[in-house]
Amino acid sequence: MKKNYKMLVQYDGTRYDGWQKQGNTENTIQEKMEKVLEKMTGEPVEVMGSGRTDAGAHASGQVANAHMDTELTPGKICDYLNHYLPEDIGVLKVEEVGERFHSRLQATGKVYTYWIETAPKMPVFQRKYIYGLGEPLDLDAMKQAANKLCGTHDFKSLCSNKNMKKSTVRTVKAICFIEHGSQIEIQVVGDGFLYNMVRILVGTLIEVGQGKRKADTMKELLEAKNRQAAGYTVPAEGLFLTAVLYE
Amino acid sequence: MKKNYKMLVQYDGTRYDGWQKQGNTENTIQEKMEKVLEKMTGEPVEVMGSGRTDAGAHASGQVANAHMDTELTPGKICDYLNHYLPEDIGVLKVEEVGERFHSRLQATGKVYTYWIETAPKMPVFQRKYIYGLGEPLDLDAMKQAANKLCGTHDFKSLCSNKNMKKSTVRTVKAICFIEHGSQIEIQVVGDGFLYNMVRILVGTLIEVGQGKRKADTMKELLEAKNRQAAGYTVPAEGLFLTAVLYE
Repeated sequence: MKKNYKMLVQYDGTRYDGWQKQGNTENTIQEKMEKVLEKMTGEPVEVMGSGRTDAGAHASGQVANAHMDTELTPGKICDYLNHYLPEDIGVLKVEEVGERFHSRLQATGKVYTYWIETAPKMPVFQRKYIYGLGEPLDLDAMKQAANKLCGTHDFKSLCSNKNMKKSTVRTVKAICFIEHGSQIEIQVVGDGFLYNMVRILVGTLIEVGQGKRKADTMKELLEAKNRQAAGYTVPAEGLFLTAVLYE
Repeated sequence: MKKNYKMLVQYDGTRYDGWQKQGNTENTIQEKMEKVLEKMTGEPVEVMGSGRTDAGAHASGQVANAHMDTELTPGKICDYLNHYLPEDIGVLKVEEVGERFHSRLQATGKVYTYWIETAPKMPVFQRKYIYGLGEPLDLDAMKQAANKLCGTHDFKSLCSNKNMKKSTVRTVKAICFIEHGSQIEIQVVGDGFLYNMVRILVGTLIEVGQGKRKADTMKELLEAKNRQAAGYTVPAEGLFLTAVLYE
């Protein structure tokens, strides 16, 4: 009989085309996991993630689930996955959950983290996990702008998908800034995010921090409901899906 | 006129044959730096490091110096190096020093750090910077053994070079253990280290932590003055040269 397993997954997304399976490629984290679990169970397995992550983006706390028929305990499933997965994908925990648990549909929130290096030189040991902006930022102005973006709004201006037919209303619960010397870590907590929303949000805040955009223009930016009104999309390499929240 | 420049260097040693220039290869950090500085000055430059680091070992605080004739300020030399060096080598600081400063001869001490993962699965984001031991260790026993190794001793038993003709007496000033969840960071401070000494010291302490060797056998181990009496040489990937000390 099939049981439902919840999995806490981390990956270095550098060499992958993102989390989610696509037509032609086999180079997604979802496929790498399915391949191992199919080997383990001897039948097709669908691994459902809490959501896509972009090509090149990382995760330290992605959540996925899969229905599988296996004699192995959750701990042994975890060991099996870690044994056969490539070294840039790791499973932190596997647990059996109720059969109705769905990692995407039941997620009530997500936390993303974005790392920026403001010093001219990229740090050697984090070079694949940080965006090398290489210039100083006015953090106070960025915090002011971030405050204006928090709350429930139509975030259409911060969405790359022009043909988005579903609602583009989301709630950003918090945007926190943590300074680590010349590095800035921006944590964004929300109930859910549109396509490229975190990367456009950070790009917009960076333009505020560079003085190219005023902190008090965030309201108009949102009201424009137009991608052109917002800042640039920062590179995926600085982005981490840190946590997926459930009730 | 040539001036003497001191450089603070960090590198991810994963793809290099160590710091020091060797006969046939061009794949050392020293050569990468010399090549850039020769391009900058238009003449041969010798970059002297505080000491070798092993193939595959890293540095977050290597110190080197070079005598060069250049119009550039130390800040501009630093920028030039960072612009032309590969992304896994970075220069944190360049400063002009007295002409008699020598990074190796005047070093009065060094700090090495060794990272061990005791959990079965390698951590995804640090996988190139930690030794995946994958089993728990008795840290108290390791600390007891470490205490016995501190002080001024003949460390011949902890040296890979069988034909070492110079003195093998060194002073280990401190061995500190810092726990980060399932990861153990071991910091070793000393006036200088023999070939592979830190890696053999850590391998010996690990064998104590595994119960294969008693903490109170360290005295005999040193008295044996024989490499066979000590533990195994742990892999280079967990090793960092963290700091070089000067008066």
